[in-house]
Parts: sequence; C-alpha cells; structure tokens
Amino acid sequence: MTIKKIAVLPGDGIGPEIMAEAVKVLNALELPLQLEWADVGGKAYETSGHPLPPATLKLAQEADAVLFGAVGDWKYDKLERALRPEQAILGLRKALGLFANFRPAICYEQLTHASSLKPELVAGLDILIIRELTGDIYFGQPRGRRTAVDGHFPGAEEAFDTMRYSRPEIERIAHVAFQAAQKRNKKLTSVDKANVLETSQLWKDIVTEVHKSYPDVELDHMYVDNAAMQLVKAPKKFDVVVTGNMFGDILSDEAAMLTGSIGMLPSASLDANNKGLYEPSHGSAPDIAGKGIANPLATILSAAMMLKFSLNQPDAAARIETAVQSVLAQGLRTADIWSEGTSKVSTIEMGDAVVKAI
Amino acid sequence: MTIKKIAVLPGDGIGPEIMAEAVKVLNALELPLQLEWADVGGKAYETSGHPLPPATLKLAQEADAVLFGAVGDWKYDKLERALRPEQAILGLRKALGLFANFRPAICYEQLTHASSLKPELVAGLDILIIRELTGDIYFGQPRGRRTAVDGHFPGAEEAFDTMRYSRPEIERIAHVAFQAAQKRNKKLTSVDKANVLETSQLWKDIVTEVHKSYPDVELDHMYVDNAAMQLVKAPKKFDVVVTGNMFGDILSDEAAMLTGSIGMLPSASLDANNKGLYEPSHGSAPDIAGKGIANPLATILSAAMMLKFSLNQPDAAARIETAVQSVLAQGLRTADIWSEGTSKVSTIEMGDAVVKAI
Ligand SMILES: CC(C)[C@H](C(=O)O)[C@@H](O)C(=O)O
Ligand SMILES: CC(C)[C@H](C(=O)O)[C@@H](O)C(=O)O
Repeated sequence: MTIKKIAVLPGDGIGPEIMAEAVKVLNALELPLQLEWADVGGKAYETSGHPLPPATLKLAQEADAVLFGAVGDWKYDKLERALRPEQAILGLRKALGLFANFRPAICYEQLTHASSLKPELVAGLDILIIRELTGDIYFGQPRGRRTAVDGHFPGAEEAFDTMRYSRPEIERIAHVAFQAAQKRNKKLTSVDKANVLETSQLWKDIVTEVHKSYPDVELDHMYVDNAAMQLVKAPKKFDVVVTGNMFGDILSDEAAMLTGSIGMLPSASLDANNKGLYEPSHGSAPDIAGKGIANPLATILSAAMMLKFSLNQPDAAARIETAVQSVLAQGLRTADIWSEGTSKVSTIEMGDAVVKAI
Repeated sequence: MTIKKIAVLPGDGIGPEIMAEAVKVLNALELPLQLEWADVGGKAYETSGHPLPPATLKLAQEADAVLFGAVGDWKYDKLERALRPEQAILGLRKALGLFANFRPAICYEQLTHASSLKPELVAGLDILIIRELTGDIYFGQPRGRRTAVDGHFPGAEEAFDTMRYSRPEIERIAHVAFQAAQKRNKKLTSVDKANVLETSQLWKDIVTEVHKSYPDVELDHMYVDNAAMQLVKAPKKFDVVVTGNMFGDILSDEAAMLTGSIGMLPSASLDANNKGLYEPSHGSAPDIAGKGIANPLATILSAAMMLKFSLNQPDAAARIETAVQSVLAQGLRTADIWSEGTSKVSTIEMGDAVVKAI
C-alpha cells in the first residue's frame, strides 16, 4: 500500500473529541496513512472567516479520503446562510462530487433495548439507505426571493427553490443502489413522490429502466409518506432503500433514530471513483461538547468504512468492526447507550478500549 | 340550525364501506343535514373519465362541508398523472382553497399496545400536526420536463418542480397554528429546512414575525430531519406542529403511524371560512376492500370533526366521540386494532355499535 493522505476535519461541538478517538484507532492499525488536519465549520469561520476555507477545500481535494467529525452550533444561527457551519458540508459534497451517500441503519444486538421501538421490531435490523447527495432541491437553481407574478398571491413577497434531477444523475445513483443491493439481499426500494412531483416521476421511470440491467434484484417503489410510515411499522421489511437528496435527508435520520443507536452509525459519501467523505450520522451535539461523554463509535466505524470503500483495506476495516463488537460485548457503554448492568465509560475510555481490542 | 348540505364522496377501495358507517352515524344524530353523494377518484374516472368530474366539483363547492372516504388503487397506476385518483384530492384542495390541514395524532388509551413504540413513549400521546395544503412544491409552477441548460449535466433530459411560498400563504397558516396552540397547551413547533432552502428561511422568518401577535404561545423551530427523529425518540415532547405541504405530508403520516391506531385518525382540511373537507388519515387500502374488515372509526371521527369545525355542532361532535370511546371500552375492535382479549368485529358491526352507543 502506498502512503494514503487522509484529510481529518474535526469541526465543531463534539467533533474534536470523537475525531481524536477515531485517529487513535487508525494509528493503532499501523497503516501507511498520512493524516492532515484542517478546520471546518464554525471553527473555520472563527479562524478564517469561512466555514470551508480554501486551504481546507484544497486539502480535501488532494486527499485520498476525508474523515469528518461534525459541524454546527446554535451560536452561528444568526450568521447569514452562506457563512453557517452546515455550508461546509454542502460545499464539500458539491466540490468533491460526492453524489452517493451510504447511511446504514443497524440495530446492534446489545443495544436493541435502546430503541424507541419494541425489541421484536428492531432486533437484527440492518437497512442501507442510499441517498443521492449532490442534486435535488439542495442545489437546484434558480432559488431566492422575489415578488410573485402568479400563484395564490400575485404581487406578494415570495421565496422559491427548484427541485430537479437529470437523467444521468438518476442513472448513476440507481446503478450504485442496484449494485449495493446485489451485494446484500437483492431487494431495493426506491422512494419518491411520483403521484405529485415531476422530478419523482422521472426518478421512478429511470430507476425502472436501470432495473433491466439488474434482473436479479427485486425492485419496488414506495411514496415517501408511506416509507416514513413503513419504517415505523415494520422496518425489517426494508433492505436497501434509494432516494433523492431531500427525502433521503428525512428518511435516513428517521431510520437511524429507529435503531436507538444513532451514536453508533457511520456514513460514507462517495464520488464516481470511490473517493469519499466519512462522518458519523449524528450531529455536533454542542450541548454535550467538552464534557468527554460523547460516543466516538460512529466516527470510529466511519474510519472503518473509509478503509473499506476508499482505501481498499477491507481487513483493516474488519479489525475495527470486530474491535467495536468486542467492546460492546465487554459491556462498555458511553452515556447515550448506557443501561442498567453495563459500565459507563467516557469518550476517551471508549476509544482506548477499541484500541486495546485491536 | 338551517339545513346543511354535505357532499359525500366515498371514493375507492374501502372508501364506500367506511363511508356507509359514517353516514349511518350521522343519520343517527337526527340533525338537519342533506347528504348528497358523488363519485370521486378511480370510481369517477370509470363512470365519467375524470377523477374529479365537474358535477362532483360543483357539489363540493356548493356544499357546506365535504365528507371524503379515500381514493386510489394500483390498477390506475398506469394512467397518466392527470387522470389518476389522487388528482381528485389535490384538485379539491386547490379548488376549495383548503389551505389548513389538521392532522391529529392521538394514541387511544386502549390501543397503546398497537403502537410500534414502547408503551411509555406513546401512552397519552396527543399531537396536532397542521400542514399547509395548497402551496409548496405540490402546486408550484413551473414544473415539467426539459433539456437541462445548466447543473451537473447540461444537455441532459431533466425534470423539475418549484417549491414556493409567499408571505400571505405563510402568514395565514401561521395564524391558524398559533390559534390552535392557544386552545391547547400553548406550544408550537414550526418545522422547516431553513439551513438549506430559501423557501424555508422565509417560512421561519414569517412564523417568527407572526409569533409577536401570540406572546402567550411558546414557539420553537426544528429542521425537518430532526423532527422526523424526535417524533420517533420522544413524540410526547410535541404538542402543535406547523409545517409546509411537503414536509407535512411525510411527518403527519409518520406521526399517525407512531400512534399505532392510524385506522382511528380523522383529518380536516379547512378554507379561510372554516368550510372543510373531512377524511380519514389512512388510505383506500385496496387489498382489503370489499372484505368488510376495514376500520370505519377514522371516517366516523372525521364526521365528528366536520360537525365541530364546519357545522358549529360541537355537542353532536362530542356525542360521536363519546360513543367511539364507549365502543372501545366495550372491547370492540376491527382487525387492524384487534388484540388478544378483545372482540373482533366487522366494519358494519363497528358502525352499528357506534350508532347504538349514541
Ligand atoms: C447539515 C445539513 C445541511 C445536512 C443535510 O441536510 O444534508 C445534514 O442534515 C445531513 O443530513 O448531513
Ligand atoms: C394522495 C396524495 C396526493 C396525498 C398528498 O400527498 O397530499 C396524500 O398522501 C395525503 O397526505 O393526503
């Protein structure tokens, strides 16, 4: 393995704490990785006036993969949108062309009780949500404020955004999704709102077309409102789900919360060449930042995903995953997943335990 | 009370069965109501070539209120969008100006066990979701297919929709929501995606402005992805929620499913003068149509909402609600809410039991 460069972007809130543990774990693997740090989000805004400064973007572009902590804090809510921490993550997705977001929603055996759902509904749950990440209403132009010329109140002030998807954008995420389904249980659910939206109708048509190249995968289509319900009612009926950026934002978070272990869930955002950005599914949790109680496992497991997807090191990834299983089996828990009869540990203790298990 | 005209639109699937029971209950109240039937949805397409034929629309416009069953069936999936059953409901909302959708998510004491969630999380749950219903990406022009001139793939085929909200549209739904909150626990959560969307930023700004007229109501703002999570994690933290048409579609269904009693949940869609359309929150369930097993209670409770909101008959509404409580207390259950130790009844038996309890 040649030396691979990893951009390490801890960010805000609990970001630096959880990232420190993930880095400890990566170091323990003794792989030829060159880690380079940069500020991002609110931290970067404070040090250099922008949530995604040119130096950070350049590092991310040059690196073989990006390991990302979390961004955001209420104290930046009053900034104009372009300067808010979240713009860093949107900017990175767009600049790096990270169109395929993998969001596993897994319910860990030892953590089943932590779910809001009845244990029998979530025990063994293992869903993969694939969210398109560079299109849709997130980036669609035109958008802005103007005076309405038509609609219910012509002449009134209005704001607008554009949802849009083009054929190649839908085709490429559909291929990613069918291929992911082939590697799992060969069952794909495509979520849209084709009964209302033109964009969704094109989505549905093209996913149906691409399906012809994957006859071994069973495809079904579901409206987004129904998907939001079925996730609550019978989450285990899903295997791989593919959807657009906006619906994926909502459904992947809903699914993550269903597992009860959102502090455990990693994510990957990939470009066309499997270069990717890896980050925990949870946020920056400014309310608990600096207290040393955050769960570093989602970030540690994101590092494992990075080794697997972008660095072609499946064995190293498996070592991390096995180590995480083993600390859970030992009964070690951070506060968010703690329950009677298990041992409460700090962020650092959890990271140390994973290193020890490796 | 002068004679009030009610447009009765049973629709497709289980629509006719559940509507028959709601009508039985209304008749039992012996109020001066004139009920007039018309076809809608797939049924109307079959009899007159359009899901919302002119005669049905005219009846709905002339009536003092509309009682609606459900529309839709897989067999119409291949029709062009404009002729599909769902267009009837979208057309009625638009033509009648029904901008305020009230979607209660209530967990009935006797049905707590039917929820996917742990009983302690849903026992006593009583949320009111207020969804804006005539704006947003549902109706925003322009929309369609075209060749992309910019974006990721200029020159490619693309589809697009426009999300838009004007100041008066947001103001009026905000007033409705704050007033509803005043009648309940004085707590309102406004849901948006202002960290990404211009439309949401205007929404958030205006809801904050309108809040000044309701200083007794506590207002908070939540992003839609977070709302989808918090509904699963701690639904009882919500009281009244107000949101746009698209996010409301998803969140109101998610919330309804959380209660476990979607077969029990009514809804109201009101115009500026409290004229309204009333329908169960569930769909047309073509898979169980004609079997006599559908739960008519959501439609019966929709009739109660109609009496309260549009016909100024709160006492009659209360009689229905008390009767429904009493049949539940008697242990009568349709299949969807049946559990060990209760008596399974048919659609008709349930309707008869409510009539008897009145
Ligand atoms: C921070 C925000 C812009 C972002 C999104 O909406 O995509 C986040 O919610 C996510 O899902 O990564
Ligand atoms: C049938 C469909 C167009 C409709 C909607 O999306 O509004 C339905 O889901 C609803 O919520 O009433």
